[in-house]
Amino acid sequence: MGGDNAPAAIVEGTLLAADRHSDVIEPILVGDEPVLRAELARQGAGGRGIRIVHAEQQIDMGEAGADAFRKKRDSSLSVATRLVRDGEADGLFSAGNTGAMVAASLLTIGRLKGVNRPALATPIPSSGEHAWAIVLDVGASAEVKPINLYQYGILGDAYFRILFNTPHPKVGLLNIGEETSKGSDSAREAHKLLADSHLNFVGNVEGADILWGGVDVVVTDGFTGNVMLKFAESIWSWTTGLARKEVGDHLLAKLGMLLLRPSLHRVKTRMDYSEYGGAPLLGVDGIAMVGHGRSNPKAVCNAIRFTGELHRKGLNQEISRDLQREQGGKVVGS
Amino acid sequence: MGGDNAPAAIVEGTLLAADRHSDVIEPILVGDEPVLRAELARQGAGGRGIRIVHAEQQIDMGEAGADAFRKKRDSSLSVATRLVRDGEADGLFSAGNTGAMVAASLLTIGRLKGVNRPALATPIPSSGEHAWAIVLDVGASAEVKPINLYQYGILGDAYFRILFNTPHPKVGLLNIGEETSKGSDSAREAHKLLADSHLNFVGNVEGADILWGGVDVVVTDGFTGNVMLKFAESIWSWTTGLARKEVGDHLLAKLGMLLLRPSLHRVKTRMDYSEYGGAPLLGVDGIAMVGHGRSNPKAVCNAIRFTGELHRKGLNQEISRDLQREQGGKVVGS
Repeated sequence: MGGDNAPAAIVEGTLLAADRHSDVIEPILVGDEPVLRAELARQGAGGRGIRIVHAEQQIDMGEAGADAFRKKRDSSLSVATRLVRDGEADGLFSAGNTGAMVAASLLTIGRLKGVNRPALATPIPSSGEHAWAIVLDVGASAEVKPINLYQYGILGDAYFRILFNTPHPKVGLLNIGEETSKGSDSAREAHKLLADSHLNFVGNVEGADILWGGVDVVVTDGFTGNVMLKFAESIWSWTTGLARKEVGDHLLAKLGMLLLRPSLHRVKTRMDYSEYGGAPLLGVDGIAMVGHGRSNPKAVCNAIRFTGELHRKGLNQEISRDLQREQGGKVVGS
Repeated sequence: MGGDNAPAAIVEGTLLAADRHSDVIEPILVGDEPVLRAELARQGAGGRGIRIVHAEQQIDMGEAGADAFRKKRDSSLSVATRLVRDGEADGLFSAGNTGAMVAASLLTIGRLKGVNRPALATPIPSSGEHAWAIVLDVGASAEVKPINLYQYGILGDAYFRILFNTPHPKVGLLNIGEETSKGSDSAREAHKLLADSHLNFVGNVEGADILWGGVDVVVTDGFTGNVMLKFAESIWSWTTGLARKEVGDHLLAKLGMLLLRPSLHRVKTRMDYSEYGGAPLLGVDGIAMVGHGRSNPKAVCNAIRFTGELHRKGLNQEISRDLQREQGGKVVGS
């Protein structure tokens, strides 16, 4: 029921996933049953037998996430996370309220042993070998301690290995200078922990380094990560708007734009992360995939496929194994 | 002596400023006297009588800023900040080591009464009435308390008023959500202080809001501001590189690029902040202007002109008056 285009886009994306990935995906729609039935019928899939689990309530985008989750015990999100907790589902996807999704996943599904705080991990285009880097956390927690940043390194490393089937991703700590001595106390302490870990830690990376491929996994706090990503996302549309205005009625420039369109389209495609459809909340004991509020059917379908893939490839088993290996007797995390 | 192109670009920019703004600017070059004399002669300005103040040492870009400043008592930066402290100069500009510049300004020139931490303020293009917003702090302090963020609001407000001759700039607090309850403890507390101030406080702004003109002064901590700005700066060159690669040998696309060049040039000019030439370190008892390490002569000239302008327009008197007005009996800052 969550997201700007729900339930139409969610149902359409779910049907796409059920069609294209029927060998590995068995979708369950969670939400207001009459509404979902009507939407399935409207999309000509009334007889497809897609399973529906009813939920009385829903959380709106504007609500304070954690509060809304606590108050609405029968929201679609609460019901969906309970399905994961109880083993009836292997993961969940929501394009709804991110704060509520984080709270629901944390409180209902629970954290993996050894993880203090889960982290949202989002792909970002890069000149690196795998054409993408990931950044985490991009907004699950506003406040972190060094131990959390260190754990983000472990979480991101496992995720990147699975995502790109590569053994030793380069893990970097986002900071305001490359030298070990740079940054906040928290960043300096996290630097030590990461340097002492089994990770392929490449040290501090600055904001200007991310796109150029020297790092695969960019570790940062959810405040910095969120602000940086949102600002970056806005640059494309803002600059495109500016360019359109400058082109205006200049005929030659308009022709130029037309001739360039295929190239620009390829650039845009290159930066389009809807292939992944969502950002997983890493560190919870199930696969919890957060979609963009504006998710279209294609993004929903990809996110569902991707949720299944992370489950099948054993993301959380990898993370748990790495955390145990890290601990080696000493206690990290809770 | 600081900056990637020193001393040639610095000397050339200084000569430009001396030519173009001789009515209001009297430049003093601080650094290795024989080197500077030779450079002046090389540029055909040996007889111009530009004043030189000799400094034995210089701080390199790669040195740890604060340490280097403490160790090198006769660096060009130390000597220049002493000139400002002693009233022999009204301000200084450096394209050198930013950390050293912050330390030298703080420790030699000193803070304005009521300011705990100075902040670097940088312009950023925007769709707003004045076509630019400013963001502060972008890297003077890695760690801040709510009181610092609040003071950044006062500093940025005064700076924006003088920069654009406008009475009530819209001041916003960078956060990860628009609601008052959002963000870190520090952001929430700063929100309260800013809301209670005399500023035209528009509340929290998210990373995606900055470019669209709803805010003139964006307050954030130096860690987040630095990472965000550096990441954003890298996007232009990275995306341009990608576009060039996509255009490649496609003849029609190459023609398109050619036809679009004037429009793209205007877009780039619109985003070129070298008009200001530098970012002032606000909150110190003098004008301290930090230039980009890659500053070319035009940027150096503009930064020098701009340094003089902020002095003449009484930036620090404005800030001091505002801080007193804010205090109104209660103590803010030290």
